[in-house]
Amino acid sequence: MLKFYYAPKTCALAVHLALEHIGAPYEAIALDFSQHAQRSPEYLRINPKGRVPALVTEEGILSETPALLLYLCQRFPQAGLAPLDSLFATAQMQAFNNYLCATVHVAHAHRVRGTRWADDPIALDDMKKKVPQSMGDAMALIEDGMLKGPWVMGEQYTVADMYLFTIANWLEGDSVDISRLLRVIEHRERMRQNPVVKRIWPLYV
Amino acid sequence: MLKFYYAPKTCALAVHLALEHIGAPYEAIALDFSQHAQRSPEYLRINPKGRVPALVTEEGILSETPALLLYLCQRFPQAGLAPLDSLFATAQMQAFNNYLCATVHVAHAHRVRGTRWADDPIALDDMKKKVPQSMGDAMALIEDGMLKGPWVMGEQYTVADMYLFTIANWLEGDSVDISRLLRVIEHRERMRQNPVVKRIWPLYV
Repeated sequence: MLKFYYAPKTCALAVHLALEHIGAPYEAIALDFSQHAQRSPEYLRINPKGRVPALVTEEGILSETPALLLYLCQRFPQAGLAPLDSLFATAQMQAFNNYLCATVHVAHAHRVRGTRWADDPIALDDMKKKVPQSMGDAMALIEDGMLKGPWVMGEQYTVADMYLFTIANWLEGDSVDISRLLRVIEHRERMRQNPVVKRIWPLYV
Repeated sequence: MLKFYYAPKTCALAVHLALEHIGAPYEAIALDFSQHAQRSPEYLRINPKGRVPALVTEEGILSETPALLLYLCQRFPQAGLAPLDSLFATAQMQAFNNYLCATVHVAHAHRVRGTRWADDPIALDDMKKKVPQSMGDAMALIEDGMLKGPWVMGEQYTVADMYLFTIANWLEGDSVDISRLLRVIEHRERMRQNPVVKRIWPLYV
């Protein structure tokens, strides 16, 4: 059985939603980041990066959200959570998820995990100050074109919607002006009505 | 024909190497970052993110290195540049490429593109100061396990090798202590002997 490691308030929500949508059996294990459980010797043997999500499969352990999401779509194609019959559309979905991971999530992380990249309190403060703008600018590209509507990829509901939803929940905490992100917010509202989201999201708040 | 946008000194080298290894016809177009060509109205119509690489295909435009690399592997499977017959191994390769993109490249970018995340000169300086450590720590995980040897994925030479090579070339500029990265450096040396690398790499120096 798949074993899934996650922690509240993290991006692991995206993969968690995918697992739950797929409906294959999996065991979910919460790490307590307030106790630094992600840096324990036991967990570092599972994921040496000390981060979530991580997925233990029969063949080994996987991490990194865009890779995990595509793996689950390919392994459970009957769930229909990616446009797998088109190489181009799948690549577009991967590009979207990669942008969330390497640009949008990274912008957000400068508010809450600035010590990855700086030490001086002045630097950490200055990074925090810029997050509303950098996060807002990054999301504006999604608002203005990447989100095709009604779902990220257009008519098909995919794992990209779960990932966008995950990160869109951080906007108010990042003090982003959401009045310029009406389509993103409308998408987020629609996601919140989904029964699977209603079941899993409370674990992450 | 595929149309590929790149710029010297950027991570576009990884996709460029993949295109060249595959041998399918493509047109390569260099952007002059010193003239801010990536922010020109013409280029922003191609890639609204104002970054490279970008690939114009018959079906539309793609960006984001991990997505582009997998797309090329899937579209030209005869090149054998990914373990496509295993979902798990492909996901591992994607996880590796994603780590390069979202963690290692991001660590590096704090030296050269800090204004993405801060404005205060003290902050920009402090970010720069931390790069040798953050970049070194990120690469140490590759050294200590993710690089299976002799290639990233073991016996098979894949696009992950081209991407690792691309980023490993930045280590001295980032003042990383390479004496702790002997396997990474040995891999880089072996890559530099590859005829395709010899042909393309000079465009990026």
